[in-house]
Amino acid sequence: MAITLPLGFQAAALAAGIKPSGKPDLALIYSPFPLQWAFTSTENLVKAPCVTRNRSRYSSGQPVRALVVNSGNANCATGEQGIWDNEDFAGAIAQALGIVKVQDVLTASTGVVGRRLPIDKLRAAAPALVEARQELVDPAAEAIMTTDSRSKVVAATLRGGARIIGLAKGSGMIHPNMATMLAFILTDAVVAQETLRGWWGKIVESTFNQVTVDGDTSPNDMAIVLSSNQVYCEERELAQALEGVAQRLAQQIARDGEGATKLITVEVTGARSSRDARVAARAVVRSPLVKAAAHGNDPNWGRILVAIGAAGVVCDLANLAISLQGITVYQGSPTPFDPGQLSRQMATEELRITVNLAAGTASGVAWGCDLSAEYVKVNAEYTT
Amino acid sequence: MAITLPLGFQAAALAAGIKPSGKPDLALIYSPFPLQWAFTSTENLVKAPCVTRNRSRYSSGQPVRALVVNSGNANCATGEQGIWDNEDFAGAIAQALGIVKVQDVLTASTGVVGRRLPIDKLRAAAPALVEARQELVDPAAEAIMTTDSRSKVVAATLRGGARIIGLAKGSGMIHPNMATMLAFILTDAVVAQETLRGWWGKIVESTFNQVTVDGDTSPNDMAIVLSSNQVYCEERELAQALEGVAQRLAQQIARDGEGATKLITVEVTGARSSRDARVAARAVVRSPLVKAAAHGNDPNWGRILVAIGAAGVVCDLANLAISLQGITVYQGSPTPFDPGQLSRQMATEELRITVNLAAGTASGVAWGCDLSAEYVKVNAEYTT
Repeated sequence: MAITLPLGFQAAALAAGIKPSGKPDLALIYSPFPLQWAFTSTENLVKAPCVTRNRSRYSSGQPVRALVVNSGNANCATGEQGIWDNEDFAGAIAQALGIVKVQDVLTASTGVVGRRLPIDKLRAAAPALVEARQELVDPAAEAIMTTDSRSKVVAATLRGGARIIGLAKGSGMIHPNMATMLAFILTDAVVAQETLRGWWGKIVESTFNQVTVDGDTSPNDMAIVLSSNQVYCEERELAQALEGVAQRLAQQIARDGEGATKLITVEVTGARSSRDARVAARAVVRSPLVKAAAHGNDPNWGRILVAIGAAGVVCDLANLAISLQGITVYQGSPTPFDPGQLSRQMATEELRITVNLAAGTASGVAWGCDLSAEYVKVNAEYTT
Repeated sequence: MAITLPLGFQAAALAAGIKPSGKPDLALIYSPFPLQWAFTSTENLVKAPCVTRNRSRYSSGQPVRALVVNSGNANCATGEQGIWDNEDFAGAIAQALGIVKVQDVLTASTGVVGRRLPIDKLRAAAPALVEARQELVDPAAEAIMTTDSRSKVVAATLRGGARIIGLAKGSGMIHPNMATMLAFILTDAVVAQETLRGWWGKIVESTFNQVTVDGDTSPNDMAIVLSSNQVYCEERELAQALEGVAQRLAQQIARDGEGATKLITVEVTGARSSRDARVAARAVVRSPLVKAAAHGNDPNWGRILVAIGAAGVVCDLANLAISLQGITVYQGSPTPFDPGQLSRQMATEELRITVNLAAGTASGVAWGCDLSAEYVKVNAEYTT
């Protein structure tokens, strides 16, 4: 792809030998400037040391300078040792970068749970990683992958020239409240840290938290936005562009779910509240029966109705409406349609399910993927 | 199998032509005596007319005389028409049996959602069904199956000679709060209706509601116990035997989940409350990643830990312990074990996962099955 980073950012990647495949497994994002940032992380009780450490740094309100990510090992459920290994990881990078305060380096780890981080390999790789810094995002986007089939990068440019680059990984164990998903958004737009933090929670809620692949949640997830403050822009335009980039990354993550062959977008309207709409949309996109029907191009709207019924949201069953690829299949009672024709319309890489709860005016969207035999194969054979 | 019904019961089955396969799809349970009964049904907002009708009858507190079940069509999401069709279904059976009050006949339907019940076929079949009554449970147990690979019957005899026979169906869409699960338990033991109703909620909570196949819930599920009051027995022995029969049926349902190759039993101890223990056990047995690992005989305890972390229960992570097939794999931090040997021990039809939350003294169990490529195949191709 060859996508240049926003002003004031450098990135690097290399293979440190964590992944048995020998593929790149170490990525660095760095700025010579202090970076404003906002952060969201997993709500799983089990949290990797990188999550806990970044959270603590976040509450200090201080800017950061670098973010280092390793794939192939989550350094999670590794006891006290894992906390020290994570600290050492940050320390090795800070030293190689000549950064005095090790807290200025954020860390992220993704991969197998419960194995000790090969800290010697990381320490040994740090100088070469720092040496490899350049202006493209692509190598870093590749190095953060685990079972992802492709790297995920999204770019946007604002009217005044400010730029936004998002990179993410995510594949299995992806689910609301930040599951195995790492998402990093970099911008050179000038923005006050408080403003950025105010936006971020809402952006994450309507984008990354609306993606589900398998309903499992990971202890390592985080979404971070970093700004180098180099280019002036209009605030409202920036907020919208950040949300747009986050949404496109969320869609890419859903589309690339383990074993997935299609992106499922569920749009819920007529909800009593935005929360209800989001909960209902996620309930549909999470249902294994809906996901399997989507895989088989089966216009089985009964499974959608039943998923809504179990979602715990307010709806008016006598007026509730469901459509598949824009074709109404249910409206209080079954609507006549041609199953063969609709099945052919479903046989694409993008399936759109729309549900009107007939209970209010709020709406919400969730993204997911179909359930294929390949998902089972990947997860029966791969130790995450 | 040829298992005789308890005293005071007759059963029948035949193929009414609802299933395209021509297999039996109509079952009758009948008694010449008034039957004491207790009832639990789905909590899905979407409820089939049979569920609503039985609920209403249940609140009357009156005994019943017969239960008729059809498979191949759920008569759900069929609007007003479905309500009348269900009433007609009960009426046809009452007439053929010579029962004056149509409310004395309970109904249950399972199968595809959203298609009109072929009421003419059912009406035509009613006299032959009534004619076919005999003393064995087996034909009825077969006629209630949908994608089940085998019929599910459990028998128990009390010391005084009273008997209990349970029959059930369940395969996909099985999940707590009564998903596509029909379970009927018949006994000739003398028991007061109020006593039976007092027990039933608790029995269902610790047995059928602890089974999950895919996290989906069905609008047609019900569990009913019926007593013909013919043989005296000790009350406590009866309560325990009923729970035992319900538990064995629950295990059979889990073991026969769509595409399943093994029964997974998750036992949670050290919980702050029974509710916490049950919630945690279900969270583990529901996780697609745990289920896929079980399928691949992968001792991937990280996925179990992460499922507990997301379950919303109280636990002490520093002391939490996990074992697989009795081998401790985690206790606050990873415990050394031989992965190859443990994987070989997991390669059986019964996998036992034990989790000690280290937060109290309560315990609970849940049952489920592994996730195989066959599950996807069944659900991508079968319109439920």
